[in-house]
Amino acid sequence: MEGAGNANHEVEAPSRITIKGILGLLMENVDTGNGKRVVSLGMGDPSAYTCFRTTRVAEDAVVDALQSQKFNGYSPTVGLPQTRRAIAEYLSRDLPYKLSSDDVFVTSGCTQAIDVALAMLARPGANVLLPRPGFPIYELCAAFRHIEVRHYDLLPNKGWEVDLDAIQTLADRNTVAMVIINPGNPCGNVYTDQHLREIAETAEKLKILVIADEVYGHLAFGDTPFVPMGRYGRIVPVLTLGSLSKRWIVPGWRLGWFVTSDPSGMFRKPKVVERIKKYFDILGGPSTFIQAAVPQIIDRTDEAFFKKNIDMLRLTADICCSRISEIPCLTCPDKPKGSMAMMVKLNLSLLEDISDDIDFCFKLAKEESVIILPGLAVGLKDWVRITFAADPASLEEGLGRIKSFCQRYAKQV
Amino acid sequence: MEGAGNANHEVEAPSRITIKGILGLLMENVDTGNGKRVVSLGMGDPSAYTCFRTTRVAEDAVVDALQSQKFNGYSPTVGLPQTRRAIAEYLSRDLPYKLSSDDVFVTSGCTQAIDVALAMLARPGANVLLPRPGFPIYELCAAFRHIEVRHYDLLPNKGWEVDLDAIQTLADRNTVAMVIINPGNPCGNVYTDQHLREIAETAEKLKILVIADEVYGHLAFGDTPFVPMGRYGRIVPVLTLGSLSKRWIVPGWRLGWFVTSDPSGMFRKPKVVERIKKYFDILGGPSTFIQAAVPQIIDRTDEAFFKKNIDMLRLTADICCSRISEIPCLTCPDKPKGSMAMMVKLNLSLLEDISDDIDFCFKLAKEESVIILPGLAVGLKDWVRITFAADPASLEEGLGRIKSFCQRYAKQV
Repeated sequence: MEGAGNANHEVEAPSRITIKGILGLLMENVDTGNGKRVVSLGMGDPSAYTCFRTTRVAEDAVVDALQSQKFNGYSPTVGLPQTRRAIAEYLSRDLPYKLSSDDVFVTSGCTQAIDVALAMLARPGANVLLPRPGFPIYELCAAFRHIEVRHYDLLPNKGWEVDLDAIQTLADRNTVAMVIINPGNPCGNVYTDQHLREIAETAEKLKILVIADEVYGHLAFGDTPFVPMGRYGRIVPVLTLGSLSKRWIVPGWRLGWFVTSDPSGMFRKPKVVERIKKYFDILGGPSTFIQAAVPQIIDRTDEAFFKKNIDMLRLTADICCSRISEIPCLTCPDKPKGSMAMMVKLNLSLLEDISDDIDFCFKLAKEESVIILPGLAVGLKDWVRITFAADPASLEEGLGRIKSFCQRYAKQV
Repeated sequence: MEGAGNANHEVEAPSRITIKGILGLLMENVDTGNGKRVVSLGMGDPSAYTCFRTTRVAEDAVVDALQSQKFNGYSPTVGLPQTRRAIAEYLSRDLPYKLSSDDVFVTSGCTQAIDVALAMLARPGANVLLPRPGFPIYELCAAFRHIEVRHYDLLPNKGWEVDLDAIQTLADRNTVAMVIINPGNPCGNVYTDQHLREIAETAEKLKILVIADEVYGHLAFGDTPFVPMGRYGRIVPVLTLGSLSKRWIVPGWRLGWFVTSDPSGMFRKPKVVERIKKYFDILGGPSTFIQAAVPQIIDRTDEAFFKKNIDMLRLTADICCSRISEIPCLTCPDKPKGSMAMMVKLNLSLLEDISDDIDFCFKLAKEESVIILPGLAVGLKDWVRITFAADPASLEEGLGRIKSFCQRYAKQV
């Protein structure tokens, strides 16, 4: 198999940690003999908990679309026209201009929207600016598309804001875009309108695009309301990425969007549109009948459903913060204001026999059957990411065990 | 926007025709004022016709999975374990060895399986051998992945068999794979067991893999039964691509598979598996609840459903062939034996005022509101592809209009 062997030379994985990969290893490390139920605070998937269930409206809309037998066939690869229109109208509610259906491309979840954004910007020598801590799918996509990654820091003591000075230092003429995630994963940040304007102005000055990952859009439960980056689309072209996954608690439905929030029309040049469309021709795309349900899902979902989820996230985030404040070796520099996750700093000098965040998480999994994500997986060594999209009882239980674990490993002074 | 302008330099579409693109243009060319209902024999999507409806079993399985509320969350990116197992067992029925769940990766339709296959084989300088006529998504994927394409001919007078001599001439040390589509789109071929063995032996001799696109698997209605390429996986590693789309008539559900039919284990090397898995981490993937329905769909679908569809396809293919035989300027060198499409040769010397296949199809769309695909879109100039996955009445109507059209343009002798 020499030829096939040749083919193998390149069949190498980019040497990146993935969240699912490391969580899988942690799960394998759980000691099933210790009699403790596994508490997983590792993944941003609330659908496992009964307190986070999607609305009947959404479920019925999908069943109706399926049973109508009108949507078993192919959709246009960029999405059904009515789905594109519904998403354009939904997003336009919060913008000072109207998006058109042509701005919207329907994707298989936000993951595929990320891939589209990076694939569309790939060219020899290109680099992209990614937040640290961040979401490792960006690094993985960039590696597969041969785009250089440059990391800028989020500032823990300034509400995890973008380090705009770093952006200016990092960018050069080969920089094609900067990515922001707002509301933030893994940090739980929600950026102010003022900060978003500063981001837009900085990007405009540097002549780079902004990729705004708003998969947690509207999931803001603090004092800062969610503002879409697209509000500043007149200052700088914005690629808005989002999905039904988080707000409607259906990450498994794989219904997302890639949207050109670009009233200046840079992405409406025929050649650009043609390239985007051709790329969509090779993507599998989301199910037609789920797409067909989107207009109803958006129109008919009750505000009460959203409010219930926001209230629940506020409660679970509060539980997390208050339990963490009781644990000396853990600090949370900024209370989460949105999304479903927060970053917590380990003070290793207060712990005996724990070498780093990876060691902490593996021992915790083994001894306490609690799964949390080592910060290294999101680019921040000796921190951990805790997901609070869980029911209050599981959170109390999990954080209680983290507390005992930390007490057991506390350095004797 | 100079920097963003830079980014644009590469934002160019590979200059490829896509089937959907050209069909869209043909549709726009229909003269809506001529009072004729549009008859579309252009797309391989039978779900539009009531005589080709999916089975209630499949629909119910999806509704049950959705309503169970157990499958709204993320699945592993390579697919749910039970889905992988069910597909492995389904495909193993026709193989002399057993596939394992680990051989199966669940994709968003066969389109995504094609992309995975090419992306996994991409490396600098690589080339892939594609059939002519073929399915243009391969060319498009190869272009986006920077893989050189070399075409080998299918032989119209030998049942559209692979020109194995051409394969040997085209392949070199940078050739990573050859693609076969069986049952064939656009030709309606079904390869004999003997021919598949010869393909395997040729590929083995050249040390290249075989990518076997079996999206039309089991849709054989002639004398030649469908045999999966994987039967010869011991001779040469085979990547089997497939989906529920055609056999279950649900192309819009986006549920496909990428399978390593590879008992010799070349694809089970840890580095290869790791790379495949990482690539799946950046793909959107199919809906979890549709995946969850797959075991039931496979287990409970009645043979009578399959038989009904096969009988219908035999009937509609027969209608097509017999109507075409009445039209002097059209010839079908080989009666279709499977899939949902056939290639028909235009004899332009018998026509007045028709310059080529494109001209033929555009005039036909405009004057007769009948849509068929110009052969150029699948790599064969001055042929046309006709899809017979339509109801008999529409086919009779469409081919009747093609006949009048050809009579109108017949050269006076």
